[in-house]
Amino acid sequence: MAKWFDETLYPFYRQAVRIDETLFRGKTKFQKVEFHRNERLGRFLTLDGVIQTTEGDEFYYHESMVHAAMLAHGKAKSVLIIGGADGGILREVLKYKSVKKAVLVDIDGELIDLCREYVPSINGGAFEDRRTVNAPGDGAAYVAETDERFDVILVDSTDPQGPGIVLFQAPFFRNCRRVMNPGGIMVTQNGVYFYQQQELTDAHKHRLKVFKKAGAYVGPIPTYVGGHMAFGWASDTLDFPAVPVATIRKRYKAAGLTTQYYNPDVHQAFFCLPNNVRPLLGMKPDGAPAPRRAAKRKA
Amino acid sequence: MAKWFDETLYPFYRQAVRIDETLFRGKTKFQKVEFHRNERLGRFLTLDGVIQTTEGDEFYYHESMVHAAMLAHGKAKSVLIIGGADGGILREVLKYKSVKKAVLVDIDGELIDLCREYVPSINGGAFEDRRTVNAPGDGAAYVAETDERFDVILVDSTDPQGPGIVLFQAPFFRNCRRVMNPGGIMVTQNGVYFYQQQELTDAHKHRLKVFKKAGAYVGPIPTYVGGHMAFGWASDTLDFPAVPVATIRKRYKAAGLTTQYYNPDVHQAFFCLPNNVRPLLGMKPDGAPAPRRAAKRKA
Repeated sequence: MAKWFDETLYPFYRQAVRIDETLFRGKTKFQKVEFHRNERLGRFLTLDGVIQTTEGDEFYYHESMVHAAMLAHGKAKSVLIIGGADGGILREVLKYKSVKKAVLVDIDGELIDLCREYVPSINGGAFEDRRTVNAPGDGAAYVAETDERFDVILVDSTDPQGPGIVLFQAPFFRNCRRVMNPGGIMVTQNGVYFYQQQELTDAHKHRLKVFKKAGAYVGPIPTYVGGHMAFGWASDTLDFPAVPVATIRKRYKAAGLTTQYYNPDVHQAFFCLPNNVRPLLGMKPDGAPAPRRAAKRKA
Repeated sequence: MAKWFDETLYPFYRQAVRIDETLFRGKTKFQKVEFHRNERLGRFLTLDGVIQTTEGDEFYYHESMVHAAMLAHGKAKSVLIIGGADGGILREVLKYKSVKKAVLVDIDGELIDLCREYVPSINGGAFEDRRTVNAPGDGAAYVAETDERFDVILVDSTDPQGPGIVLFQAPFFRNCRRVMNPGGIMVTQNGVYFYQQQELTDAHKHRLKVFKKAGAYVGPIPTYVGGHMAFGWASDTLDFPAVPVATIRKRYKAAGLTTQYYNPDVHQAFFCLPNNVRPLLGMKPDGAPAPRRAAKRKA
């Protein structure tokens, strides 16, 4: 009988990945951790019963988060990564020669070590890069206290449940704004809105309380089931969706990137928001008929 | 203990939907059919163990197939639907006042009746529309024999396994071309390429054997797990991706459509092909470095 990893993210729906080999099962101070291997998806990491990343599709997520932000900014030298223990975000960030420093703050230092041992291909040597500062700790406390400043902030967190919920709320966003250089931008994972509508709506409202500009872009990740995943973004100065695709294309070529999923066309698609996500961001669905005005009544 | 519908599409991966109510289990002449209800996804249909459609996300698929083709064509009067027993494709096609006739040819007439009984919201009354010709039968035989001609052909089939495989091959495409009016276009479901690469590559080659132009566009469907689904297209005259989004927008507004997922921005995103799908269609990944030429050797 084959063994299966049954994801327990939703009560009414689950995905299951066949376990062809178990590499590790244990607990850190913060969470239950498992590493298994699957024929198609390769090695994969789960935290508290939820699939976080797989060797087979990690590049969809990491490339979508990193290159959208980095290429829209265009000249980021300093990058802050909150979460991201597996090192995939870090790996993509370090592809830019313009980057002088990348600080990674994941609350779970033990998890970083486990990822380096069991899914080394995901960080691809990024922790040995001399530009990397691996500073395990509480990301919310870090942005409240540090004197460092950043051009791009990437929040590669778990979903807004339990201790992670603070990473989706205004006080955290206010501190991110505090440590952001002029012209800076932040991007955060914001769930699969088909199943996690409220998470997107709530976090978007919190971002709008703090930043002059905020929104979300969308793209599918195979093992984050439910259609599009949303990435929330916020900035005081950069109108992210308005950066012309021609500019993105120029920067993409200039950076000499090789990507497995992302390209400038995909970048453009990120900002093509379907009718069912627009209202979650306070926008009218496209093509919806104008609401009928009630006929005036005499009193 | 909750009951679950475990999808058996892939040996190494499965999705499972909680069964909150079972409406029907049985067999037609062609396939094993189940209708269940799930709290989040509503009523859903499975054929031979594979989820076909759910009330909760059917609009992603039906709108993505129909409006892309119809708006790119721009003045379709006659539409042929191969498959599509649930009536969702038919419902979207009939939103166009320009359509005078929509012929639906699904091999499984019993299934059509079951869908009308158990998921009536998906057809939304489309089978009662006077423009509808419900002609249950073998789609491959229909296009080989009919004297009718069509502006748009939509192939809403199961995956290319068993008897459905002929709908992905050149002899079928040749007959589709035969029954197509000048300026016509066909669109076919072509699987989730993250898990079903070969299906896309193979069908694309078959389309290119027959039509002057062929390609694919992509979009995610929540319960067709694995990131993007691919829709194959083919035409002798219409360069589908080249239809300007401004034209699509004008036609979308003129048609007075209300859509839950699709809009002209989404249409544009359909043709933004990720690096990992491009090689399946014979295209180079964007941004990939030019292959190194082997140094010339003296003999």
